Amino acid sequence: MIPPDTHLQIGSLLFEGVDQIDLTGPFEVLSRIPNATYRLYGKTTEPVRDVRGLRLSPDASLAEAPQLDVLHVPGGFGQEALMEDEAVLGWLCDQAAGARSVFSVCTGALLCGAAGLLRGRRATTHWASFDLLPFFGAIPVDQRVVVDGSWVFAAGVTAGIDGALRLAAELRGVDAAQAIQLYMAYAPEPPFDSGTPERAPPAILEQARAAVAAITERRADTARRVAARLGIAP
Amino acid sequence: MIPPDTHLQIGSLLFEGVDQIDLTGPFEVLSRIPNATYRLYGKTTEPVRDVRGLRLSPDASLAEAPQLDVLHVPGGFGQEALMEDEAVLGWLCDQAAGARSVFSVCTGALLCGAAGLLRGRRATTHWASFDLLPFFGAIPVDQRVVVDGSWVFAAGVTAGIDGALRLAAELRGVDAAQAIQLYMAYAPEPPFDSGTPERAPPAILEQARAAVAAITERRADTARRVAARLGIAP
Repeated sequence: MIPPDTHLQIGSLLFEGVDQIDLTGPFEVLSRIPNATYRLYGKTTEPVRDVRGLRLSPDASLAEAPQLDVLHVPGGFGQEALMEDEAVLGWLCDQAAGARSVFSVCTGALLCGAAGLLRGRRATTHWASFDLLPFFGAIPVDQRVVVDGSWVFAAGVTAGIDGALRLAAELRGVDAAQAIQLYMAYAPEPPFDSGTPERAPPAILEQARAAVAAITERRADTARRVAARLGIAP
Repeated sequence: MIPPDTHLQIGSLLFEGVDQIDLTGPFEVLSRIPNATYRLYGKTTEPVRDVRGLRLSPDASLAEAPQLDVLHVPGGFGQEALMEDEAVLGWLCDQAAGARSVFSVCTGALLCGAAGLLRGRRATTHWASFDLLPFFGAIPVDQRVVVDGSWVFAAGVTAGIDGALRLAAELRGVDAAQAIQLYMAYAPEPPFDSGTPERAPPAILEQARAAVAAITERRADTARRVAARLGIAP
């Protein structure tokens, strides 16, 4: 826990093709952390579209970001286009080096991996990309939220809400996190039990794997290139 | 369930001061419903700010909306400013009259109530506004998701995700909803048990009630005026 009178700079990376709830799930929590400034940073300040079309606007560009205390890296199909983007990867490296906490959600972990930040780190990501973690030198941990030192990893998509509450507690204490949880009425009751590959009906899982097969293959090709660049033998 | 070859028009009301996750939680689900067009409608097409500053952009204005098959009404502090806005209330009435489903999230229920749509309806809303439902002629039901005929009500904030999955199943069948749930990795694991007034530590609840006391009082005043206008004796 950080002294309550220490102001925190919290920032999320925002990019074209983000999966919006990787960002907006944590937003609900991060924007309510006491004594903090929270902003969204994009390559430019132009609005971007999430993978399903939601328009989101950065508050400022990457270059305008101060050293962040908390760096949040969401995922989504659009992460692929940044896996060899030196400006973004360099920004992630610089920010992560000075941050108190780094919070990776979903395939945001692949971006962190491409920036060389996952070597030797216990990590998780979306189930469809989980097998790619070793290409970045990470140790895959099949949990919804994984805490490794100053890093918090949330697995797929909505896991970002669970991870953000965990992070809020690390930063400002359990009381602060519980107050946010109560405001958000976060006592989930999923109407079906289909939220993980293990629990989804087999036919649904097969269909879901088929639906993401093309992007998963592209991600695997990219991960192999990144591993070669970073000198990692998975 | 609606025939799979019937195209659905799905629309959310977007307004200044919305609580973003009342919209973005359902967005993750509604934008993935098969054979549907999903758009966000605002009073104008100008971007708005959520209650914590997230900028969101309508796809079109209320006047441009076709008759919607599914009308989604989110909440948030900004709902108060619309409780006597005839343009918005009229739009809600007209749309609800022709919609197959109406989906109210959080204090979106108060807006529906101000539009006179809750008379005799079993409904829910955010815990801080739950006691106001009778002013709109609604029958309060203390459940996270309440289904009343063609209406789906989700209680506070993140309940919109549970409600949206329920709605997806009503519209396109359980398989479709389960596929979306799996993609979203929605197998929540809240790190604390503080998501309802009953379960939150008493000190946290007291603090939370104090934090929303001013807006709750304004909402109560407005609800009384609406009840008088609608001729409802709660």
